[in-house]
Amino acid sequence: MTTPEPDLHPLLRSRWSPTVFDRSFQAAQSHVSSLLEAARWAPSAGNSQPWSFIVARRGDGTHHRIVTHLAASSRRWAPHASILVVNVCHRYVEDTDWEYSEFSVYDLGQAVAHMTLQGQAMGLAARQFRAFDRDALTAEFAIAPHWQIMTMTAFGVVPRDSRADEAAPPSEHVPRHRRDIGELLWPGT
Amino acid sequence: MTTPEPDLHPLLRSRWSPTVFDRSFQAAQSHVSSLLEAARWAPSAGNSQPWSFIVARRGDGTHHRIVTHLAASSRRWAPHASILVVNVCHRYVEDTDWEYSEFSVYDLGQAVAHMTLQGQAMGLAARQFRAFDRDALTAEFAIAPHWQIMTMTAFGVVPRDSRADEAAPPSEHVPRHRRDIGELLWPGT
Repeated sequence: MTTPEPDLHPLLRSRWSPTVFDRSFQAAQSHVSSLLEAARWAPSAGNSQPWSFIVARRGDGTHHRIVTHLAASSRRWAPHASILVVNVCHRYVEDTDWEYSEFSVYDLGQAVAHMTLQGQAMGLAARQFRAFDRDALTAEFAIAPHWQIMTMTAFGVVPRDSRADEAAPPSEHVPRHRRDIGELLWPGT
Repeated sequence: MTTPEPDLHPLLRSRWSPTVFDRSFQAAQSHVSSLLEAARWAPSAGNSQPWSFIVARRGDGTHHRIVTHLAASSRRWAPHASILVVNVCHRYVEDTDWEYSEFSVYDLGQAVAHMTLQGQAMGLAARQFRAFDRDALTAEFAIAPHWQIMTMTAFGVVPRDSRADEAAPPSEHVPRHRRDIGELLWPGT
């Protein structure tokens, strides 16, 4: 199966991770607020909310500071997105190497998933990536040692230009691969 | 703010984590398939899909094996849910202590988030929890050492019985707490 089943909710079924974004679409502050609101209401272990975000809209000062630290591979496409979000995890207890929560990374993943689906609902596709200089970005934004930058998310509008083959939904040009549903079950269960 | 903003997508806005479930509602195999399909299409680092699931419907043999290992706190409510899912993470490379992926736990969190939202779309509320004997459950299902059980999710229908105060949406009886949206931004950004 290389396309999602039709009974999957449209937000989940239509989601994919583009690397081509409309270079002219300007996100509004309300887009940013709604993305943060989605993260805010995500569940977390003991309601620990172990997340923080650096949010930039293309062209603003924060955006410039982030783009400087992208790797060559992401620099080709990520700056064109309308919004870049740096996803930061409250990973350790301050001044120790104890985990803040056994689930901090897991919970950040959930919060980012909620953001990407809120984005999808607003017409903003999302791609998460790790192609950036984490140490430099950590220094740039003075991230405290007990917090850790995990990933970045690019949000933007996928161009409708049919010549932009890379921007077409993957079903239109290349199969998407996933393990079969039976392989998602632990063997013998 | 103790309720989500109205511009949040209904699936995200309506989601909460009950601990009271309708003890008579029987989930169909199609519910199980759709939950797995939601996980299956979740994004993951390099499409690594570092997840596996043990899925039980109330009353089946797998359900009985899972319930045996619940902690006292979750045994009061989790067995009443229609579906229990054990969320398993491909955490290490086989026969090593190397991480399989830097993002395996994060990606499992995303896949579970996608499952919970698919559940929500089907009328099945979800609560994730960790109140179980992980070692015993690991032995019960012969989980390989490079995989790790992280959490469990209970899916079910919230009873509409107004006497079931615990089952009412939390906005009706107790405020839900989240950090203010400004506190989600990394300071100074």
